[in-house]
Amino acid sequence: MKRFKMIVAYDGTNYNGFARQPNGTTIQETLEKAIKEIVQEDVRTLGAGRTDQGVHAKGQCVTFDSETQIPAFKLKKAINSKLPLDISVQSVEEVDETFQPRFGAKRKTYRYQILNSDVRDPFLYKYSLQYPYKLDISKMQEAAHHMVGEHDFACFCSAGSSVKDTVRTIYFIHIVDKEGVITVDICGNGFLYNMVRIIIGTLLKVSEGKLSTEDIPEIIASKNRKKAGPTVPPQGLTMLDIIYE
Amino acid sequence: MKRFKMIVAYDGTNYNGFARQPNGTTIQETLEKAIKEIVQEDVRTLGAGRTDQGVHAKGQCVTFDSETQIPAFKLKKAINSKLPLDISVQSVEEVDETFQPRFGAKRKTYRYQILNSDVRDPFLYKYSLQYPYKLDISKMQEAAHHMVGEHDFACFCSAGSSVKDTVRTIYFIHIVDKEGVITVDICGNGFLYNMVRIIIGTLLKVSEGKLSTEDIPEIIASKNRKKAGPTVPPQGLTMLDIIYE
Repeated sequence: MKRFKMIVAYDGTNYNGFARQPNGTTIQETLEKAIKEIVQEDVRTLGAGRTDQGVHAKGQCVTFDSETQIPAFKLKKAINSKLPLDISVQSVEEVDETFQPRFGAKRKTYRYQILNSDVRDPFLYKYSLQYPYKLDISKMQEAAHHMVGEHDFACFCSAGSSVKDTVRTIYFIHIVDKEGVITVDICGNGFLYNMVRIIIGTLLKVSEGKLSTEDIPEIIASKNRKKAGPTVPPQGLTMLDIIYE
Repeated sequence: MKRFKMIVAYDGTNYNGFARQPNGTTIQETLEKAIKEIVQEDVRTLGAGRTDQGVHAKGQCVTFDSETQIPAFKLKKAINSKLPLDISVQSVEEVDETFQPRFGAKRKTYRYQILNSDVRDPFLYKYSLQYPYKLDISKMQEAAHHMVGEHDFACFCSAGSSVKDTVRTIYFIHIVDKEGVITVDICGNGFLYNMVRIIIGTLLKVSEGKLSTEDIPEIIASKNRKKAGPTVPPQGLTMLDIIYE
C-alpha cells in the first residue's frame, strides 16, 4: 500500500464544505469519486483541515492510500481530468505511510479577504466580505499584535466544538490593503472552530471603535466567546497553505 | 431630459455578451430592466463597446437618458440594489447631453489574462486562457512592439465585421508575468472586431516559434486575416477602462 499526498485548490462556493456528510455535495466525496475512477479502487481521503461551506482553499493537503501502479507524476493530470473545474489537484507525491495531513501539520495559514467599499465587485463577491465603512488598518494591526503568541483562545472558538485543549500559537497576522482590497493572513500551529472568522469579526469591532486594542488581552483572558466579535461570513476565507516538518 | 454616465463592472460568464439580442440574457437588457425599476420609465442604454459572450468588464461606460428627479449620487446604490451580483455599477454621474460613450472614447484599454500552467486554477478558469507551454515573454513583448502605432489592422479583424476603415492606433501593449499569471494590457484609440483576441493568438504563435517577431510588420502589411494567429477564447478578456477627453 502506498500513501499519496496531494495539494488541492478549490472554489468552495458550490460545495457543502470539505468533509463528507449525508446531505449535499462535498469536496471530499468529489475528490474520492475522481480518484476511484483513476485507481479503480475505493479510497478514503484525509484532509489537513475541514473547511466550512463556502470556504475556499489554495493549499489544502489531502492524502489517500492506494495499491495503484500509476506513478505519482501521472496521477495529477489523470485525477484532474475527472474533477469539476472548481476543484484542481496542484501536485501529487508519494509520501511515507506515517505521514498524517492533519496532526502532522506544523503551521497553517489562512487568508481572509475584505472588500472595503460601498460598491459590490462582480469578481470578488464570492471571495470576500464587502465592508462599506472605511477600515482603520493600523488599529486592526495593533489589535492583531495582541493576539500573536501562545494563548488559550477559547474566546475565539464557536460553541459546539468538541475540542478540549484550546491553547494555540499564532505566529503572525499580516494585514495588507491593496487599493481597498484588504487581506488578513493568519498563520498558526492550529485553529479552533471558526477561530479565523471570529478573529476577523473582532478586528472589525476594533476598527469600528466598539472595542479598543487594549481590550484584546482581556478578551483572551476571559476565555468567553461572548466578549469577542461576531463570526464573519465564510466566503472571505481561504486555506492558503500548510507546512509540515 | 438628463444624460447619465455609468461605469459598470461585470462578470460576463453567464451572459450572451453586452449588446441586446433576441436570444439569451445580455448585460444591456439586464441594466435597462434595473434602471427602469428605479426611474420608472423605459430607458435605452448605450455602451462604449460591445463585449462578446464570456468577456468581462471592469470599466465599461454606459449612458442612458432619463427625466428622473433622483440625483446621480443616489442612483448608484438604487440601481445596484436591482442588479444581480455579477453586474455592478461603480459610479453614476450626470453628463452633458452631447456625451457619447462609443464615438467619444479616446482611449480604450483591454486586458487579456493567461494562466501559464499545466494545472487548472479553480479561481481563474473563468477569467483566463490556460496555456500549458512555457511562454517566451520577451519574444512576445518584442513582437508586440511591432504592433504599436497607427496601422491598418485588417489582418487582426474577424470576418463578418461591417467596419470599412480598419486603421487604428495602438498606444501600448504591456505584458506582465506575475508568478505564471500573464496579463497583456492593450491600449488603443479603438479596436476592430476580435482584434485583441487575434493579437493575443498571434503573440502565442510568436512564443511558440511558429511566427517570428520580424513577421509582424509583414502580417500587418498583408491586411490578410489568415496570416495572423488564431482568435483566442473570450473568457480571458476584460474591458479595463475607457478614457474620454
